[in-house]
Amino acid sequence: MPTVSSRGQKVIASPIRKFFPFIQEAEKKGIKVYKLNTGDPDLSVPASFFGEIRNYKNKNLPYAPSSGIREHITAWQKYYKQFGVELEPENIIPTVGCAEAIYLALLAVADVGDEILVFEPLYVSYKSFAIMAGIKLVPITLKAKDNFTLPATEFIESKITSRTKAIVVINPDNPTGKLWNDIELASVLNIARKHNLFVIADETYREIRFKGIPTCLLANKIAKENIILVDSVSKRFSMPGVRIGCVVSYNKEIMDTILKFAQARLSVGTLEQYALIPLLENSKKYTEPIRLEYKKRSEIVFQMLSEIKDVFVARPLGAFYINATLPVNSAEEFVKFMIKDFSLNNETIIISPMSDFYITEGLGINEVRIAYVLPVEKLKCSIDILSHGLKAYKNKNL
Amino acid sequence: MPTVSSRGQKVIASPIRKFFPFIQEAEKKGIKVYKLNTGDPDLSVPASFFGEIRNYKNKNLPYAPSSGIREHITAWQKYYKQFGVELEPENIIPTVGCAEAIYLALLAVADVGDEILVFEPLYVSYKSFAIMAGIKLVPITLKAKDNFTLPATEFIESKITSRTKAIVVINPDNPTGKLWNDIELASVLNIARKHNLFVIADETYREIRFKGIPTCLLANKIAKENIILVDSVSKRFSMPGVRIGCVVSYNKEIMDTILKFAQARLSVGTLEQYALIPLLENSKKYTEPIRLEYKKRSEIVFQMLSEIKDVFVARPLGAFYINATLPVNSAEEFVKFMIKDFSLNNETIIISPMSDFYITEGLGINEVRIAYVLPVEKLKCSIDILSHGLKAYKNKNL
Repeated sequence: MPTVSSRGQKVIASPIRKFFPFIQEAEKKGIKVYKLNTGDPDLSVPASFFGEIRNYKNKNLPYAPSSGIREHITAWQKYYKQFGVELEPENIIPTVGCAEAIYLALLAVADVGDEILVFEPLYVSYKSFAIMAGIKLVPITLKAKDNFTLPATEFIESKITSRTKAIVVINPDNPTGKLWNDIELASVLNIARKHNLFVIADETYREIRFKGIPTCLLANKIAKENIILVDSVSKRFSMPGVRIGCVVSYNKEIMDTILKFAQARLSVGTLEQYALIPLLENSKKYTEPIRLEYKKRSEIVFQMLSEIKDVFVARPLGAFYINATLPVNSAEEFVKFMIKDFSLNNETIIISPMSDFYITEGLGINEVRIAYVLPVEKLKCSIDILSHGLKAYKNKNL
Repeated sequence: MPTVSSRGQKVIASPIRKFFPFIQEAEKKGIKVYKLNTGDPDLSVPASFFGEIRNYKNKNLPYAPSSGIREHITAWQKYYKQFGVELEPENIIPTVGCAEAIYLALLAVADVGDEILVFEPLYVSYKSFAIMAGIKLVPITLKAKDNFTLPATEFIESKITSRTKAIVVINPDNPTGKLWNDIELASVLNIARKHNLFVIADETYREIRFKGIPTCLLANKIAKENIILVDSVSKRFSMPGVRIGCVVSYNKEIMDTILKFAQARLSVGTLEQYALIPLLENSKKYTEPIRLEYKKRSEIVFQMLSEIKDVFVARPLGAFYINATLPVNSAEEFVKFMIKDFSLNNETIIISPMSDFYITEGLGINEVRIAYVLPVEKLKCSIDILSHGLKAYKNKNL
């Protein structure tokens, strides 16, 4: 029998999705599981989206152009304009969520064996995509105890080699909840300009920030053509199942290249491109209530976690994740314990162990990511369950 | 300024999609353009699909599981059963059209520098995907004058090296309209078993065949675990804009690997997975009229093309393409002439030059692919325009 490729063997199972079987088992036993593991918003989709879907009048469902349906692209142009970013249609290509935008950006900047600088802990799909594309990710570790602050410019520069092609900036950040400040952003842009690197700016969570107003890195004056923005409607409109994102750049060579890649896979959903137009055109109406809701949740979750003995959390300033350091030897084992062996009043929680979000071996082994994608009352129950679970786990291991 | 990757530079623009600007120019001049270049069916989507879309009741649009929505997978199981293929849910993973299925299958079987045997002319996305993934495609040329018949087993085997990982079988074939016969299929399966290779079987056009009944390679008794089936609803239900396909295999290692890749990009459209269930469950009701319509068209187009002086066509037995050899030095130039400089009663056609469908340099330069995705009357006009265009092109070049 032929065997699978080594890249296929190397790619890891999603640390977020691999617990699905355990969740199903727990639910079979009648246990209610609060799901804080996936970035899957509990909030409703703006109703106008489904209205648009129902209003689609064409009897055909043809391929969209690889460059996107014109009216959809116009809506993106209008969307970015509010952040001071003026775009031409050829600066935008729609993608299958931000995931595909990331993958195509990686392919466009790096060949097999090339390097890309990333900050860890890191949204885990980057790791898989790098393996699939034969690219080496070079990590710079950010620490919860330092509020995930960037190290000195010289330290970042010390990681650059002749094979380095790009730096990844996820802002607001998944999985840490970090919000980049202007000095950090300027530092990365200057490094990019000085060392001739691309910046892959992942702004999926743009509007979900709890300090300052939403921004777009492309509004910057420096290193404009070095930036490749990857984006998505999934989180800001609470609709990850829609699978629409985009890649945006002022760099013509990059856009020409990504268009050729996009042509190979033809197009992204026709129906969705049309239905998203009104949402993109009036985005703030939808994103502002969402932002306020997550802000409220972030404060409650941060407060409750801070009060648990020996748990350390950095205050999240964006996205809808909080990264917690737990008093356990293995967060992986603890998460399994919670879903397989523990319940409080017949309820338990599922959260994500963090070690797979790191590239450096051995980091994050006592950290978890908690996605606060449940209403406040359920979040309170969840953190309470976590607190009791930690005690039970400690007693079990005494 | 940093430069794009070499793979980005190497990937070619779609030979099908690169003429869009010329089409727009012609249309601006008021010329009606019959579009026979893309595989974009003119037939209506089964109405029940839109009914299902409108009936979606959930107010959320969550990620689907990477392994697919259970009921959607059950519908695929039912769909394949009619072809004698019994599957478990873990044998099927939904993908973003057949395009993504192909790409993930390539990554699962081959590492950078590995080789995959293909038959040329070849559906052009395979070429782009191979460049993106760093895989070498090794072509075996099939000739129109031989009705695209497979060469002797020994000849195919002579192309196998220690780096060869798989053979691609597209049946019915795009771009040639070839239908593989049982002897050819058995030959490839035997080669795969003997040399420990995977078979990537692309059956996007399964039901669109004009001889025999629809089959699935997975119903075969030999080399079952060598086969990776890639599939799509785009053509059989006339809905390429829906972006749903799947990858199917009895090989557990392959499915485990593709699931890990799939997890990295999260999921495929939630709404579409639900809406497709009734179509997959009663597919024949929808595919049979489609098959008959294309059969009728194929005969008319074949007949009319055969009657044009110095044009050679092989009779198409499946899909909705016909490959024609024209009395021109450069099909590329001729296609450009037709869209830029020619019209008959203010009408013209756009078709695809074939050289980019070949891997071997210099082949196909006088060949075109014609997609018969228009109603019969318009097809008749189109072939008439082609005939007049050939004369005008000849006179111009005298």
